[in-house]
Amino acid sequence: MKLLDSLNWRYATKKYDATRKVSEENIDKIKEAIRLSASSYGLQLFKVLDIRSNELREKLLPASWNQPQVTDASHLFVFCGYSDVTNENIDFYLNLKSEVQGIAIEDLQGYGDFMKNTLGQQPAEAKQAWTAKQTYIALSSALAAAGELEIDSTPMEGFDPAAYGEILGLEEKGLQAAVVMAIGYRSDEDQTQHGAKVRKSKADLFEVI
Amino acid sequence: MKLLDSLNWRYATKKYDATRKVSEENIDKIKEAIRLSASSYGLQLFKVLDIRSNELREKLLPASWNQPQVTDASHLFVFCGYSDVTNENIDFYLNLKSEVQGIAIEDLQGYGDFMKNTLGQQPAEAKQAWTAKQTYIALSSALAAAGELEIDSTPMEGFDPAAYGEILGLEEKGLQAAVVMAIGYRSDEDQTQHGAKVRKSKADLFEVI
Repeated sequence: MKLLDSLNWRYATKKYDATRKVSEENIDKIKEAIRLSASSYGLQLFKVLDIRSNELREKLLPASWNQPQVTDASHLFVFCGYSDVTNENIDFYLNLKSEVQGIAIEDLQGYGDFMKNTLGQQPAEAKQAWTAKQTYIALSSALAAAGELEIDSTPMEGFDPAAYGEILGLEEKGLQAAVVMAIGYRSDEDQTQHGAKVRKSKADLFEVI
Repeated sequence: MKLLDSLNWRYATKKYDATRKVSEENIDKIKEAIRLSASSYGLQLFKVLDIRSNELREKLLPASWNQPQVTDASHLFVFCGYSDVTNENIDFYLNLKSEVQGIAIEDLQGYGDFMKNTLGQQPAEAKQAWTAKQTYIALSSALAAAGELEIDSTPMEGFDPAAYGEILGLEEKGLQAAVVMAIGYRSDEDQTQHGAKVRKSKADLFEVI
């Protein structure tokens, strides 16, 4: 089964070969996996910043516990959740659904009002926690996509979201950094590639009731 | 690319054929995709409850906005994050890593202390939000696995976590319900299967900087 092969193949790469770049074609496939990922209500209230600027990546390094993947990997994706969930965000989705599925916008109004009432009226912190969670679904797809392409990657939570916000101007964009993914090719020197995968047994992870 | 095929194939199934069951062999593959999923530090601080009891599923139905997938789908997985992150949880991982990778436990102590300091000392709410996010990575793998097997599924956030906690005795287990996944085969009557996939364009979802 391809997905199991991909998940078995991948590992959280600690050291990249800074001289090797991932092709645009493959980056585009990883982006497509992110784009097709499930999200709550289909709203996709996140944005992925593809940081090509070396200057920005140098600035992000100290805000990322100085983990060398931030500057050495071929690509760096910063997954950001929307800071707010507004009626405009929901209307954007309703208009897209109307267009793609050929449904009159009036026929989506009831559903739209439901979403606006349940989502829009939460406190700001709950909204932010919720949009952040959606990015983890997309991150997971991106990790599996990279694995299938035999491209290395590293999911990273070890960074300072406030510092990322300042460096990347996220407040003005209405975004908050949720999780980071480095993408590239492992260095031969990366010793972690040789370690067997450490996973709980099914007996420890599942319970049938 | 297999993953893109799987993601294109899947959709959030609204109505299941209650007479069709997913084979144990395939359920086991979906569980393996969950088990192999990335998690922060590799700690896997979550558990997935595979609810086979029809009586429990009947009780969960009103706690799930009466969404019929809860009782009609072949299987129902409740992804739960750990309510707390304890030194014992981290030691469990360290012992597993020591055993699997043949590293002396003493050599992992520095890493263990680092995790205990950064993770263990967060407030309870932050710990719970963090373990919940990890379940979304596993959920995403499970959705992709089901898609590859041409098995239908539904990711579900529309439920009352407190009611799930009571019905499933989660407090005693040290767990909190984070997200639910119904698994089975679609009903011919499920009209949502005919709708084109609604996704933002890459231009709306990504920004190269």
